[in-house]
This record gives sequence, structure tokens and C-alpha cells, in this order.
Amino acid sequence: MSSNRIVLGDNQFGKAENHLVKVTKHGSRHSIEDLTVVSQLHGDFAAAYYDGDNAHVVPTDTQKNTVFAFAQAGVGSPEDFLLRLGQHFVDDFDWVTGGRWAARQVTWDRIEVDGVEHDHSFFRGGSGGETRTAVVKLVGDEQHVIAGLEDLSVLKTTESGFVGYPVDQYTTLAETTDRILATSVTGRWLYNTTDLDFNATYASVKRIMLEVFTNHYSRALQETQYLMGKAVLEAHPEIDEIKFSMPNLHHFAVDLSYCDVENDNEVFWAAHSPYGLIEGTLRREDLGDTDKIWKGVPAFA
Amino acid sequence: MSSNRIVLGDNQFGKAENHLVKVTKHGSRHSIEDLTVVSQLHGDFAAAYYDGDNAHVVPTDTQKNTVFAFAQAGVGSPEDFLLRLGQHFVDDFDWVTGGRWAARQVTWDRIEVDGVEHDHSFFRGGSGGETRTAVVKLVGDEQHVIAGLEDLSVLKTTESGFVGYPVDQYTTLAETTDRILATSVTGRWLYNTTDLDFNATYASVKRIMLEVFTNHYSRALQETQYLMGKAVLEAHPEIDEIKFSMPNLHHFAVDLSYCDVENDNEVFWAAHSPYGLIEGTLRREDLGDTDKIWKGVPAFA
Amino acid sequence: MSSNRIVLGDNQFGKAENHLVKVTKHGSRHSIEDLTVVSQLHGDFAAAYYDGDNAHVVPTDTQKNTVFAFAQAGVGSPEDFLLRLGQHFVDDFDWVTGGRWAARQVTWDRIEVDGVEHDHSFFRGGSGGETRTAVVKLVGDEQHVIAGLEDLSVLKTTESGFVGYPVDQYTTLAETTDRILATSVTGRWLYNTTDLDFNATYASVKRIMLEVFTNHYSRALQETQYLMGKAVLEAHPEIDEIKFSMPNLHHFAVDLSYCDVENDNEVFWAAHSPYGLIEGTLRREDLGDTDKIWKGVPAFA
Amino acid sequence: MSSNRIVLGDNQFGKAENHLVKVTKHGSRHSIEDLTVVSQLHGDFAAAYYDGDNAHVVPTDTQKNTVFAFAQAGVGSPEDFLLRLGQHFVDDFDWVTGGRWAARQVTWDRIEVDGVEHDHSFFRGGSGGETRTAVVKLVGDEQHVIAGLEDLSVLKTTESGFVGYPVDQYTTLAETTDRILATSVTGRWLYNTTDLDFNATYASVKRIMLEVFTNHYSRALQETQYLMGKAVLEAHPEIDEIKFSMPNLHHFAVDLSYCDVENDNEVFWAAHSPYGLIEGTLRREDLGDTDKIWKGVPAFA
Repeated sequence: MSSNRIVLGDNQFGKAENHLVKVTKHGSRHSIEDLTVVSQLHGDFAAAYYDGDNAHVVPTDTQKNTVFAFAQAGVGSPEDFLLRLGQHFVDDFDWVTGGRWAARQVTWDRIEVDGVEHDHSFFRGGSGGETRTAVVKLVGDEQHVIAGLEDLSVLKTTESGFVGYPVDQYTTLAETTDRILATSVTGRWLYNTTDLDFNATYASVKRIMLEVFTNHYSRALQETQYLMGKAVLEAHPEIDEIKFSMPNLHHFAVDLSYCDVENDNEVFWAAHSPYGLIEGTLRREDLGDTDKIWKGVPAFA
Repeated sequence: MSSNRIVLGDNQFGKAENHLVKVTKHGSRHSIEDLTVVSQLHGDFAAAYYDGDNAHVVPTDTQKNTVFAFAQAGVGSPEDFLLRLGQHFVDDFDWVTGGRWAARQVTWDRIEVDGVEHDHSFFRGGSGGETRTAVVKLVGDEQHVIAGLEDLSVLKTTESGFVGYPVDQYTTLAETTDRILATSVTGRWLYNTTDLDFNATYASVKRIMLEVFTNHYSRALQETQYLMGKAVLEAHPEIDEIKFSMPNLHHFAVDLSYCDVENDNEVFWAAHSPYGLIEGTLRREDLGDTDKIWKGVPAFA
Repeated sequence: MSSNRIVLGDNQFGKAENHLVKVTKHGSRHSIEDLTVVSQLHGDFAAAYYDGDNAHVVPTDTQKNTVFAFAQAGVGSPEDFLLRLGQHFVDDFDWVTGGRWAARQVTWDRIEVDGVEHDHSFFRGGSGGETRTAVVKLVGDEQHVIAGLEDLSVLKTTESGFVGYPVDQYTTLAETTDRILATSVTGRWLYNTTDLDFNATYASVKRIMLEVFTNHYSRALQETQYLMGKAVLEAHPEIDEIKFSMPNLHHFAVDLSYCDVENDNEVFWAAHSPYGLIEGTLRREDLGDTDKIWKGVPAFA
Repeated sequence: MSSNRIVLGDNQFGKAENHLVKVTKHGSRHSIEDLTVVSQLHGDFAAAYYDGDNAHVVPTDTQKNTVFAFAQAGVGSPEDFLLRLGQHFVDDFDWVTGGRWAARQVTWDRIEVDGVEHDHSFFRGGSGGETRTAVVKLVGDEQHVIAGLEDLSVLKTTESGFVGYPVDQYTTLAETTDRILATSVTGRWLYNTTDLDFNATYASVKRIMLEVFTNHYSRALQETQYLMGKAVLEAHPEIDEIKFSMPNLHHFAVDLSYCDVENDNEVFWAAHSPYGLIEGTLRREDLGDTDKIWKGVPAFA
């Protein structure tokens, strides 16, 4: 047990679920950006806790208003937008020393009419169904950007196995050299610069993940994470670290012997739960401790 | 008030959420079908209710086993699969007079590696993110097939308005001739035959919906439903009726005058709720009453 | 195939997810009612479909405004509130011939401080966690009221079995005379009057359901539904019919023989899916066809 | 940019969503515990990543089997159960140096029949609807226990205001000294011992939270967090730190002037989003840095 004096520790506050749709018009050609934004401020807010004194409490309603106002000048990429947004709060309020700004972005693709992409009509989810994520953390003068994606669902029907594991009295699993491997990728990666084309990099990282997931025999989901992360880091010197959280979504080949039907890995029950959960970090060897940067960013489930 | 004798009315039972993944292998080229199936039987089950006598209660576990066993011979389309599955129960059990079998299907697309679609590696949601639905109802010798889709999210940034509505003391809405129109289409259509290519028809209906949503100035979501349904029915004589349930997902242009910023329909708040809900049926003029067929199929929200 | 002339069939429109919290103040003693309301109008809206003419389209925004305005005079019970609300639309707009108004209500209980129930501070879910539902349908001069509840989760650790079922080549289930029976009750009942204390009746129906679920050996979930429905109808002459939708939430006793541990129905895996789904109607013997009343009310899953 | 050599950083793996129901039988009197458990191991798993060598990979299936096997000897409290479970993995596998074990527990209360609590029949959610959470982290020889709760929904209809905040060009919010204050409390607290009655302490902490939420005029949700955390820590010397994540669930008094109806804080729209998000830590003054303990525990949203 420690002291009986109770003090304020880590804290932050702001507005969540600001769902913003920005339309950009080039004549009759429109494009849209769809982001759900969270703004959270760090700084000196002790008086609000101890004394109910709100002199430093930038209202969450004001933070919301600022999100929408800043969007009028354009979004560009979630990372660029959040950097501008966050810097505003740090610059304008003395007692705001930093914060965490995050966005989830979904994609809208153009509807095709007679084979031509339309100017102003869209459908959602065409490019893979995942949600793009971005987090900007400002700590004094430091700017940290963590990009990512969630719910990128991938599945391979073969070229996956699991053998050679330790066995104890609780082990009933049989080894296999041919199984379905299915997961929903959550990945988040830390940039070492803010001077890059965030949209192009995102597209490249996603493409690499899909290709590497495909192009090897997976002896463990851990190995697959390693190969995916290694390829991303090798292709992108502007990324220092990547964290994966990947469920192993079990697809059990159904034993159809009850009705004398053979099942050579053709009929599977896709179980909802429980599921394996494999989480790992791949990073450059000489990178220092980044725990402070990742603090408050839920990289693992 | 009526009699005090309490009797059994409509009833059905079966197994829900049978999540089936079927892999079909043409040498090293694999394809997958991903369906979540519900099986529900109609018939004489009164003894189970009145006397706890299960002699007629085909176990829901057996229904599940049958779903997976039948998949081994192939799925083909959810409609064809459910027709085979349902007919089995009606044929094999005297007291089963019909039933309702339903499936939700999601799409997996091939991952491209170096521009080539891969043999056995897939990602989900590539073709639009919607869920395909199918319901088969057997009533004695009748076979009814209702196909559909859910969560087809579409949005147009202009070419939509709402004017000329009645006004009373509760009306505060302003007229507009330029707004975002966004909805998530749920549509279900009734076939008049079982002898068709269900997959090709599904793809055509979806394409028509997307094109018609795009290709007109919408004076009301009702008008848009009419035009979408009309186009589907005119293109597909094998469809007699289509029912839509479409939320009006409000996107409010944010009034940025608080900070002297103009907003010419560029910055929108996508509200979560409440939302408009527009539900309508389009059908051939001389079609008779189909209420009995739709009973138990949740066409409207 | 039928005619090529395409016409409008069943349709309705309105506003969904109007989340209303009504505070009633008796001096410093406050009480709250928390309802999420849907309003949907039936009538002559064909011109909106065919011609984009909104002269009959009472805006969904106006319907929302009306919900909140009507609440100021008090709610009382969801059924009474919806009856007043619905009648307003039928009375005030010639072309509105009826509609469907529905609510989901959640309960807030008073927080106790030093054993005393507080005047204005509440916590949610104290009385069982279920959601109360109400649907009012107006059809010309007819008023129909369907009350109900959802997600009333109940479980008994014994006094349930399942034996005597038919066996075919797909059957692998073993008989049992001792199992966990768990379900989440959805029940909806049709009143034959609007002149009653809806709140007291709701409380009574819920209590009866809980007691009957408890007080018998269940030979099938069907039998349990029958006994629950019979008891409700016998106790409440103002109810003519009740419909249940009840999942059989499987709790599998885990076979711990892999580690030489006995498991005498003590350790269970609560499976998420698939699950059994048992749906039935209990009604008075001389009650006529009520399909038209239930149309559009999702009594079964 | 750093080195091009890519290495493994933080990682863990295990099984999630192990939904366990434990029945304890004292003659005909049964009690139940309902926990959903996650097991995640820390240790030397590098070979699985680099070489696909699973010699150290205790299968997630084995971890699941272990959860259910350990339950046979009783649960007692989620904290005690996870401590036993986690210690097993650390003790039995040399290369497992620690891990994270977590549980979410829901409450089942006895159904009353004729005013008597039943022996073996239960309903869920009677005591407040919140989910109890527990996390055990083992780091070498250290044992850390973090208890908590989620989704404790509370609301007060008055005795809350918000004034005195800073104003800039983006501020449109009006001050108020009378508003609804509603939140869904997520709280997690760190124990400094494992030698206590975890169930009794949980009940006490929850009771204190409810009472303090009630018993003061709230000038800011921050002040409310402070008072709640202070009271918990003062009453429980075995707790060193508590972290809150509390949405400010906005209830907007509806302006009914459109229909000449007064609304003196009686009719509210409960908005779904966006919402305020207030997150804070209260702790003993001389407590050292606990970031390493909280790492991987999502205390804030």
C-alpha cells in the first residue's frame, strides 16, 4: 500500500465518433472522403478534476466543431488531416501539450454505368472491405504517426499447416499439413517521418500484405506475420515498426463419416469462437524503445 | 376475448447460423462459397408442444449435420442448394409438410499477385460489400424462391432533392434541391420459376440497382425505389415482385458560419440516427396476393 | 410470368431510431422513461413513387418532431403513447389510412444510497436486462396492440432433457435427461383491447414467463413454450395470442477425459453458434386468422 | 530510418473467447459462474516467427482445453481463477515467462417463484447489467491483478452543469447549470496484493461508484471521475490506482418552440454520436510508474 493522498495521473478528453464526409468538387467530377474522427487532448487539466474548474477544458463540442471546420480546407489523407488538426490545438491553447487524434476511414468506389465510372455516384467497400486507421500523437514538439488497417479478411484454402508443437496432458489437437488459414488482419505501423505520400504508402503496404499472405507455405501464423512485416519494412524505409493482431479463424473440416461421405478438405464449418489470437511486432533492429509512442494506441486486441 | 382453450398456432423449428465454407478444387485451382444457413421445418409438431413427445422432432443437430453433408456434393448457388436441402426434409419425413430455408452469402475474391489472380488465396468483400440473401419456402408441393441482398451501401453527392411536402405545426424541415442521397439497400425479389441461372440473375439485378440509383435526379427515395424496381422487373420476366427497405442515411451539411467558413455542400456530418426508413414493393399488375409466400420473410425492417 | 405493367404494392415510410428520454418531475422526485420509437405511415403515397410528387409525403423529419412533441404531455406506457401518436397522423392527414408505430423501452432503476432509493439518479438494467417492445398498428378504424419483450436471458442447470426423437443417417446426437437449458426469450402478445393497464400487464406476463420456465421438467423447448404461453393466456383474458422465438443456446458439457478429469455436468462450453431456433404460437382456440395483424411485425426471427 | 535488419519485438499468442459456464452443486442448490476467458502467453517464441518452428508454441487449442479443465476445480472469482491458470503455464513450460489472462464475467440471478429464490433457475443481468472484467499479468515472478467493470450505465436527471470553459472561434456551446449527465462507466483498478476477497471488493467498488456518482453536483465529468476514484482508493487500501473511460452520452433537451410547447428539461433526444470521451487516472501520490503493468490492458478507449 502507498500514500493516502490521491492525485491525478494520465488523462485525456475530447470528442469521439465525429463522422465526417467531405465532398471535393472538380466541376461535375466529385470525390468523397469518409472519416470517423476522435480528438483527445493532453495537457494541464488538473483543476477540472480537483476543483470542477473548467477554465482549461476546451469543450468537446468545440473540438467537434473544429474537426468539421478544418475539413472544409480538404482532407487529403487521414494522417495529414489529423496532423493539421492536432497542431491547431497545441498551438492555440497554452495548456494543451499534446494529444491523440485518430480516424477510421472507409472507401467509396465509383459506380460504373455502361462501363464508365460515374462522376458523383458511389458504392462502399469495393476495394477490400477493410477499414483504414490513422493515429497522430503530439507530445510537446514531437509528432508521431501510426497508420494501419483493420478487418482485412483473407483466407487461403491450402498451403498452411501446423506441426511440431509441444504436447502435454491437455493437448488433443492433431497435426496437419493441409488446412484453411483464415484471418482478419489488424496491422498498425509507425512512421519515422511525416513527409511522405500517406495514401500511396497505405496502398503499397496493403498490397504487400496480401501478396505475402498468399505467396508462402505457412507453418504458423507467427511465421506469416514475420514474413508480412519483414516485407513491409524492407520495402518502406519510412516505416520503423509494425504490429499485427490476427485471429486464427478456425475452419474445421467436418467429419461426414456419419453418413458415409468422404470430406477431403472440401466442407468446412467456420467456427465463430473461440479463436486463436496471434499478436506480434516486427521492427528495425536498432530501433529504441517505442512504448511511450504506442501508449494509448490499442495495437493488440 | 375468446375461448379459454389454448392451442398451437404457426410454428417452426430448426438450426440457425450454420456457417458453411465449401471449397471446390479443379486441380490446383480452388474456389470457395461461404454461406450461413438456417433450416426451419414446418409440419405436424403438436405432440412436442402438448406432450413433450419428440417422435416428430427432427433434431436441430441433425438438420445441421444435413446442411454440411449436402454441401459435399456442391453448392452452386444458395437458391439451388436450399431447394435440394429443403426437398430432402419434405421427402424423407412424412410429417414435414414444408419449411423455410435461408442463407446469407458473402463473396471472396482472388488476391492478385503480380497482376495475376491467385489459385487458392482470397480476400473478402471485393465486389461491393453487400450480403447476398436467399430464402426457399416449401409449402406442400409449392416451391417459392426469394432472392435478395442486404447492406449494399450507395451514395450520390448531388442529383437529389426533397420539395413539395405537406407542412403542419410540427414541420421544421427546409426544402432542398441539392443534397447527398445515401442509403443501404435491402432488396428481396420473388421468382416465378426455379429454372434459371440464379447467380447470373443476381449479378444482373445488382448491376441494374446500381445503375438506376445513379442515373436519375431523385425527387424522393420513393421515386428511386420505383425506378429501381421497375427496371429490375422489366429486365427480368422471371421476377414477379421486389420489396425494398432503404434507410435515408442523413448527411447534414454543417453550418460553419460560427467560424466564418462557407460550406457549399462540401462538409457533411453523417448522422447515425434517427434515420428515414422508406419501404416499398414493386410488382406486376396482375399478380395475385402473395402475402402467404412472404409470411415469415422479413422483407421490411 | 405476369404482366409487364409495374405497379406499387405494400409500402410504408417514416423515421426510425427516435431515441427519446422523458423526465417526469414530481417536485424533487424524478422518474424517467427511455424509448426508441419508429413511426411508419400507411396510406396513399403512390404519387411519390410514380411521379416524385411529395404532396402526401409527411416528412420523416416531421414525424420525428411529432414524436418528441407528443412526449411532453407524458408517455405513461409505450402502448398508450404509440396509440396517441399514431391516431394523430390518421386524424390529421386524410390520405394516411393507418400505420405502424413501434417502441423499444429499457428500464432504469434508482440507485440506492445508504439503502434509500435516490430521487434523480439511476442505473440501467436492474430488473432483468430485457428490452420491452410495443407495436401499434392502425388499419382504418382498427387499433391493434402487440406488446412484447426481447433478450430475456434465462438458464436452468437441470430439469431439462431431450429424448425420443427420430433418427436418420444424419443423426449423431445422443439422448440426454440432464442438460442445461438456456435461451433468450423473444415473446410478443396480441391484446384484444386497448383499455387496460399496459405496464401492470407487462410485469405480470414477464413474471409468469420466468416462473413457468423454472417450474417444470422440460422435455423439449417446444413444451416449455406451450406451458409458458398457456399460463400467460390463462391468466390474461385480454391477450388472445402469443408468439415466441427462442434460440436453444447450447451449453456442451466438456469432455475432460483427455486429462483424466471427471465432468458430471459441471463444466460447460457455451457455444455461440450454430444454435437451435424454436418458434411457436399459442392462441385461443376460436380466434380467427390474425395474419393481417401480424404482417410487418417480425414475431419470428 | 534505422537498420534494415528486421527483428521480432513484443508478441503474445493464445486463445480468445473461451466461453465457460461453471455449475457448482451443493445438493439440489446450484450456482453458476459465466466467464469468457482469454489466455495469452509471453516468452521465447522467436523460432516460430523466424523459422516456422513450433517447438515452443503451446497450441491455442491446448490453452483452451486447459481453461476448461482448470474450471472443474472451481472458479471462485475471475481473479483467483486466472491467477491459478496463468501460473500453470509459467510453471509447466520453461520458455513461458509470463502472459496475460483476462476474463469478462456476467451475472446470473436466481428467478423468484412465489417470492422464493429458486435452486437452479436463473436470469441474467439482474444486478445492474455491467460486465465485470479481470486481467492477470504475470511477468517473471511478478503477479499483477487489474479488476474492473464495463458498461455500468448511469444517469442523473439534474445536479450537473458545465460552465466556465474557454471560448474560441469554434465554440458554439451554451453554458448550463442543469442538464442530464449520463455515462457508461468503464473502470479498471490495480491491486497491490493478491491476498484479498476479490468478489467482496468488487461489490464494494461498484457500490461506491454508484453512490458517488449520485451524491454531488457535477461541474464536469472530470470532477465526477476524481470523486469516484478518490472514494474508491480511500476505502480500499489494497487498490493503488484506478483508470476510468467514460463517454459523455449527450441528452439534448429538444427545442419544442416549433409547436409552441414548453420544454423545461423534460423531453430529451438521447444522441448516439458523436459523444464526449473523458478518461482519467486516480492514484496514490507516491506510487511509482506503472506503465509496464498497464501495457496491453486497454484502460482507455
